[in-house]
Amino acid sequence: MHGLLILSQYADEYLRLIRAANPPGLSIMATSAPEEGVTFGPDCDIVLGEPSLVSRVLHRLPDLCWVQSIWAGVEPLLDPGLRRDYVLTNARGVFGELMSEYVFAYLLAHERRIFPRHAAQAVCQWDDTPTGTLRGKKIGLMGVGSIGACLARTARYFGMTVRGYTRASETCADVDAYYHGTGLMAFVSDLDYLVSVLPNTADTRCIVDAALLAALPPRAVFVNVGRGSGVDEAALAKALQTGRIAGAVLDVFQEEPLPPGHFLWHTPNVLITSHTAAPSVPEDIVRIFLENYQRLLQGEALRFRVDFERGY
Amino acid sequence: MHGLLILSQYADEYLRLIRAANPPGLSIMATSAPEEGVTFGPDCDIVLGEPSLVSRVLHRLPDLCWVQSIWAGVEPLLDPGLRRDYVLTNARGVFGELMSEYVFAYLLAHERRIFPRHAAQAVCQWDDTPTGTLRGKKIGLMGVGSIGACLARTARYFGMTVRGYTRASETCADVDAYYHGTGLMAFVSDLDYLVSVLPNTADTRCIVDAALLAALPPRAVFVNVGRGSGVDEAALAKALQTGRIAGAVLDVFQEEPLPPGHFLWHTPNVLITSHTAAPSVPEDIVRIFLENYQRLLQGEALRFRVDFERGY
Repeated sequence: MHGLLILSQYADEYLRLIRAANPPGLSIMATSAPEEGVTFGPDCDIVLGEPSLVSRVLHRLPDLCWVQSIWAGVEPLLDPGLRRDYVLTNARGVFGELMSEYVFAYLLAHERRIFPRHAAQAVCQWDDTPTGTLRGKKIGLMGVGSIGACLARTARYFGMTVRGYTRASETCADVDAYYHGTGLMAFVSDLDYLVSVLPNTADTRCIVDAALLAALPPRAVFVNVGRGSGVDEAALAKALQTGRIAGAVLDVFQEEPLPPGHFLWHTPNVLITSHTAAPSVPEDIVRIFLENYQRLLQGEALRFRVDFERGY
Repeated sequence: MHGLLILSQYADEYLRLIRAANPPGLSIMATSAPEEGVTFGPDCDIVLGEPSLVSRVLHRLPDLCWVQSIWAGVEPLLDPGLRRDYVLTNARGVFGELMSEYVFAYLLAHERRIFPRHAAQAVCQWDDTPTGTLRGKKIGLMGVGSIGACLARTARYFGMTVRGYTRASETCADVDAYYHGTGLMAFVSDLDYLVSVLPNTADTRCIVDAALLAALPPRAVFVNVGRGSGVDEAALAKALQTGRIAGAVLDVFQEEPLPPGHFLWHTPNVLITSHTAAPSVPEDIVRIFLENYQRLLQGEALRFRVDFERGY
């Protein structure tokens, strides 16, 4: 018998979906606000939840053996002060299509001049400024895991040239050219669009800095759907204020929610989307959980295990 | 020996491209503003041009045998008062990819709440309202020629269900279900997106009327990249003002440019794009012209011939 604790702002929805699947030998409790002081019984050995909530109860789960994260990013669980004596798995392979819709919504909006045309409409101006096209443009993907591969496929669909920057892997057939390590400046040169899908790790912290931004052409637009820690936000604001690059679409930030007085809210040519690019869909996450639970019962290795040292 | 007259606001560009191809036995003259009173010599038997300019000189071309339109739409040449004793061909097969970028730019902008999120940003508001997705949504295409087929393919790429409304043809494999004739109301029922790619013909005039708009669900968005004549604009404005449908994206209008005082400029939830969805790219049009000229020399039937009665 296993005991599952669901910790999520959507606890009721997760509970409903998992109950409907009726997994064998599993007792379930669910909450969206784990109260201080409550001790979870020794029968609770599995947690499915949002890392920000899970981190607060880690010390109160004596028999914990496995945490399935609802998110891709597990930063709250990587704090060196927290225990690591359990298997941590995250959500993967379910965000690519939503990310692809997000990224190409904003790339097409840029080419199609959606905002300038809307401004022209407000003053009844027939604005037939020629439109741009994605066809033939160059996109650079920082990170080509399952999300990056989805972006590469959509970029190819729209006739773009695709570059990938990775630690070492070269597994995606939709990438035209791969770059690694010190090839970063060559990777970004002459790009129309730079898209970061990088997780938060020691290697990626502020990888988008003044030097990298200076290596982009002035027409370039930067899109961040990875983690806010990957960007030197002051350097990015300066690059936008001086016209060094054409624009930025930011879904993630060093601090979230972005504080009301933060300079990025009003930096020219920035579009802010408040970490909405690819929400976790409970149906997708429950599918991952149930498959991993099945593996647990059969003594198999769980899928999407996080390496605490690497950070993803 | 044949004589070609180029009539276009981009006459110089067309002249340069055709000269570079050096087609055999062809003398060329080009102008962007055919002056009144000038008579074109008997050696001028071919015209490549914008229909609005061509219609003004039709009566001054005694030896005209062929007009290649630079546009897809040839309305200015269909006036019953104008001669029809020549072969008229239009541009086809070159607008699909641009139209696809246009339509999906606006569909994704709608799902992704690009405008509301931008408004939230202006007041420093962290707007994490959940995002929509194209996956699983239903799109209805009025007209499934080469442009409609391109739209169907992209809709499928994004996981949408695709319906097609045509006179009779059912040739596109990316359409899930076809409708014809009186099936129009069944075609639009429960659609998320209705996209018109219809040409201007007697059959399509005001096909999007109050009855059709009333048959759409309130969440539906209408996109018109066909011809403005296909829409009862007063009925459309009323449907938007009363929330009968959720929005409209309009590239074409009964009168273009849309007059400054026109009600559509300020109708709620209308986006106006000033006939920029799929501009004619000279390289594409010249490719069509040169292939047809080759056919003319070899006595073959020209491609993309317009039926004056049918109107396309």
